[in-house]
Amino acid sequence: MPIDPVAFAAELIRCPSVTPAEGGALDLLEERLTALGFTCHRLPFEEPGEDRVDNLYARIGTAAPNLCFAGHTDVVPPGNASEWQVGPFEGTVKDGVIWGRGAADMKGSIAAFAAAAAAYIKAQGTEAGSISFLITGDEEGPAVNGTVKMLDWLDRHNEQIDHCVVGEPTNPHELGEMIKIGRRGSVNMVITAQGKQGHVAYPHLADNPVPHLVAALAALDALELDQGTEHFQPSNLEITTVDVANEATNVIPATARARINIRFNDRHTGQSLIDLVKNTVSAVAAKRDATLTVSAKISGESFVTQPGPFVDLVARSVEYVLGRAPELSTTGGTSDARFIKNHCPVLEFGLVGETMHKVDERVPAQDVEQLTAIYHRLIDGYFAEAAAFAAEKQSRG
Amino acid sequence: MPIDPVAFAAELIRCPSVTPAEGGALDLLEERLTALGFTCHRLPFEEPGEDRVDNLYARIGTAAPNLCFAGHTDVVPPGNASEWQVGPFEGTVKDGVIWGRGAADMKGSIAAFAAAAAAYIKAQGTEAGSISFLITGDEEGPAVNGTVKMLDWLDRHNEQIDHCVVGEPTNPHELGEMIKIGRRGSVNMVITAQGKQGHVAYPHLADNPVPHLVAALAALDALELDQGTEHFQPSNLEITTVDVANEATNVIPATARARINIRFNDRHTGQSLIDLVKNTVSAVAAKRDATLTVSAKISGESFVTQPGPFVDLVARSVEYVLGRAPELSTTGGTSDARFIKNHCPVLEFGLVGETMHKVDERVPAQDVEQLTAIYHRLIDGYFAEAAAFAAEKQSRG
Repeated sequence: MPIDPVAFAAELIRCPSVTPAEGGALDLLEERLTALGFTCHRLPFEEPGEDRVDNLYARIGTAAPNLCFAGHTDVVPPGNASEWQVGPFEGTVKDGVIWGRGAADMKGSIAAFAAAAAAYIKAQGTEAGSISFLITGDEEGPAVNGTVKMLDWLDRHNEQIDHCVVGEPTNPHELGEMIKIGRRGSVNMVITAQGKQGHVAYPHLADNPVPHLVAALAALDALELDQGTEHFQPSNLEITTVDVANEATNVIPATARARINIRFNDRHTGQSLIDLVKNTVSAVAAKRDATLTVSAKISGESFVTQPGPFVDLVARSVEYVLGRAPELSTTGGTSDARFIKNHCPVLEFGLVGETMHKVDERVPAQDVEQLTAIYHRLIDGYFAEAAAFAAEKQSRG
Repeated sequence: MPIDPVAFAAELIRCPSVTPAEGGALDLLEERLTALGFTCHRLPFEEPGEDRVDNLYARIGTAAPNLCFAGHTDVVPPGNASEWQVGPFEGTVKDGVIWGRGAADMKGSIAAFAAAAAAYIKAQGTEAGSISFLITGDEEGPAVNGTVKMLDWLDRHNEQIDHCVVGEPTNPHELGEMIKIGRRGSVNMVITAQGKQGHVAYPHLADNPVPHLVAALAALDALELDQGTEHFQPSNLEITTVDVANEATNVIPATARARINIRFNDRHTGQSLIDLVKNTVSAVAAKRDATLTVSAKISGESFVTQPGPFVDLVARSVEYVLGRAPELSTTGGTSDARFIKNHCPVLEFGLVGETMHKVDERVPAQDVEQLTAIYHRLIDGYFAEAAAFAAEKQSRG
């Protein structure tokens, strides 16, 4: 039962699975994987205040190591469908291009891994280890009822995954450019300056909070967090908003508020940055006799899967098929890899992300075929050294 | 026909003349002044988009010089009337205190000047010169259909006023503390930073306008405009608001905007400050390769009536009655004196402003009586030197 990755990608695109809708995409994937011999578990989760989301964990084989492919069938909304050259859910394949919402992010890579797994299983069976799919329907949404809860479920059912590839589109412009071996962390903070309202004609009776906040923001903007680390670009602080909302031209306002976001590398933790910001702001407050407070929320810590046998295997698989050595990167936004990294070594490699989340999302059919070949090579190589990978996981844990 | 200033103040308070309502206050004043022999002109003005406002110009005598008392019968709203100890428009006088909206600002001083004029006219007649009242009903409002248009009307009718006392409450805490001989100017500016929107994870693809604006505001806040001048306190710049209104924590915004207000002395003009701010902001923009723009609106230029015979006369009148030398000040907000100063020397002296615009506005009855005595002494002194004052005005013009 071979799987044609291009045709399967188009079939998945035809399932209108805009978060939180399942749209038939998980049903279709479950059907194909079941036919290949996978044992499938549908894992719907719900939470008060959040949409109910369906998910799928599928495994073939019982032996360790268990090589897991993680991804999502949900997609972002198509926006204005009339701006598309093709219907976003038509699954059109023409002139060597697969069109539609999710083509790049990431139904194309799901189809490629399914096709690669089918080919490997047909040739080699499952004696050397297991292959699994950890597929959520809540990656583009709040990510509450998806990967996090599936990982909990795996723990509770003694299901162990040993190494994981996430199929996010990691290549900026061309297939094979970039493997993501980690991600930066992210923390949001709100800085509030409390002053005393008054009339601009009598500033000595008021305490304008805005210059205090401006001074704090200038000090934060002047911080050099680091120069980058071995695997990461420099950490970066952005002031995302400042708001006073004072309508009156003759009134000194009582409060002023700003928000910052820091994307940070492995030189820092969310807490170390909160401490740094609080100390910086406190110094400004002390110097100016101002009341400045900081509140913070850590969205995620940074992580990196250190180069080693697993990273090498994926990089060599890319090079084998495409003849180019991919860059090992930690750039970009967050992904569900931030949750999986607590369970096993994880890295990300998928299609070209240029059109993701945009009108006319599309990928070359050849990219999906080459990605299939890369994943096939990866699976082959993984189980050729199954004992070593099983040992690596154990020594790590 | 003597006028009891305390009783007349209470009568005026009973007219609910919240801007733009005339409330019977101008009618009452016109009736009394007519009885004294004044020729009265009611001057209602209207303008598309603004409320119609009634005003009164009254003059007794035909000879120069013409000593003018300028003021307003309109009052600010009482706010929550239930918070008052007395009805805000009941005109209650008890235990030596006149209560009600407008008692300090400025029906009390209108009553005092009317009583002083009545006493002077009875004793001296109008041979030495003229006395006039320039009373608007639009001082607490937009000030569009009030003093400005009355002054135009005077010009068109060849009505000349030679010196003017504005009856605004000028004393911070005690009667006789302060004569205002000028006012600072005021200019509002908006500083806009134009950047390029983007995702916080990809700052190199965006240009965050907030740090550019913060740098510009820090530079503006660091400006020392001056150390004050002979008659003025130092000019002062306040950042009154900063607004970005970016809801998303992961988005770098496209634009950021701040507003400043500068209250400035006679070292500057509105335009010189606009130039200074533009140059300061341009230097920041050049250094940061940022797009920062400044728009500005001058609310009023600073002015000062230089100490001389007229200022001396008013100061001596205060000292004669109260035994204290008033401070000559240019502090505080703007008043209609900013319009009158283009027509003749003008200064301001009235009651104690502590309770103005607040709940339980009130003044001691004794203050109104003493203010009447001061105004009477002022009118006496002015016409005793009528020739000199007429000449002063001519040499100035």
